[in-house]
Amino acid sequence: MKLYDAPLSPFCARVRIQLYAKGLEIPRAEPPGGPGSDAYREINPIGKIPALALDDGSVVPESSVIGEYLEDRFPEPSLRPSEPFARARMRLLCRFVDTYAEPPLHALFPYVTDPSTRDPAAIAARFEELTTRYDQLTRLLAPEGPLAAGPTLTLGDCTLFPLFFFATRIPPVLGGSDPTASRPRLAAWWEAVQQHPAVAKVDAELTQALRERLGAA
Amino acid sequence: MKLYDAPLSPFCARVRIQLYAKGLEIPRAEPPGGPGSDAYREINPIGKIPALALDDGSVVPESSVIGEYLEDRFPEPSLRPSEPFARARMRLLCRFVDTYAEPPLHALFPYVTDPSTRDPAAIAARFEELTTRYDQLTRLLAPEGPLAAGPTLTLGDCTLFPLFFFATRIPPVLGGSDPTASRPRLAAWWEAVQQHPAVAKVDAELTQALRERLGAA
Repeated sequence: MKLYDAPLSPFCARVRIQLYAKGLEIPRAEPPGGPGSDAYREINPIGKIPALALDDGSVVPESSVIGEYLEDRFPEPSLRPSEPFARARMRLLCRFVDTYAEPPLHALFPYVTDPSTRDPAAIAARFEELTTRYDQLTRLLAPEGPLAAGPTLTLGDCTLFPLFFFATRIPPVLGGSDPTASRPRLAAWWEAVQQHPAVAKVDAELTQALRERLGAA
Repeated sequence: MKLYDAPLSPFCARVRIQLYAKGLEIPRAEPPGGPGSDAYREINPIGKIPALALDDGSVVPESSVIGEYLEDRFPEPSLRPSEPFARARMRLLCRFVDTYAEPPLHALFPYVTDPSTRDPAAIAARFEELTTRYDQLTRLLAPEGPLAAGPTLTLGDCTLFPLFFFATRIPPVLGGSDPTASRPRLAAWWEAVQQHPAVAKVDAELTQALRERLGAA
């Protein structure tokens, strides 16, 4: 198997947390020609990273699909709760990030790397949208914690950590606040998740990749 | 249990296909105050339909999460392939619809119900985007068919059918073409899926709901 990957992508970071937590060693590669290239679309028709190339030549694209595939194929140690509602909660957290929380955060990235493009009204609108999304997300976390879907690391944490790696860093640069600061359940999760060795390893990888990107900008 | 539902929503239609195929009888209700209302957000923080209210007061929102939950809780008859790659293919089809194919199709809806808003350049741009998405989707279907992820009905079919219920009807109204017409694998799937009794039942429900909506517009 081979994982098509990039160091700073939050979608790739999810898969790396899962691989480290499961003790799976899968070689990584850059997509030939880069994401979206014709060469890479021969491998993954959608053109995005990550994608997991299997030994028989087939490919599993999309981080959420890769996450479930790795759990189905390598069940232990499991990063999915066994009880149906807990599993639904985990999947809802993953879906919530992709559909509702990541897009408005992602829209702020260009303002960080190129200050000349900063539009205060557009930034304020994104902050307002993100406030709603973080409030909703806080209600979706397992109340008993400490991790996102209960006591142990799950795909919910793998998906949430890279979001909050950026969500705690980007708004302050643009005059906003750290979303974990005013939400106790979110703050407790954020503190707990960083203590997992697989998360700490990806935290260090993302920190290094972000430093290189910002240094180069 | 109770399913918060609306007759014309493609997201709700997916869940109804699954319920009919599994022989599950779950009462349906309209969300109090409508989707997005404060009253309904007390039930589902995200405010969207469908949502599945469980007997203990907890709620499972989002059609893709409900689909997996129903499979986890009521495993037979299964609408998920058991082999990991086939299951990944099924999940990829569901994700592809939600993330890549449904948004540009959805953006065409207002032009159908209110012809005064039709913008030829915007419509042409959506058609172009949809062409790319249908081509990609065709490559993601199980080559052996006849259904989306192989020989039997899966959550992939539940998710794809409502998309194509609209995708075969809306573009012709706006001067576009039926996407199944020029893609043999997609046409074979479209013909096969409509023969399943659960799909045929939801087809009739959507047809009736669409007639009422267009008659009222």
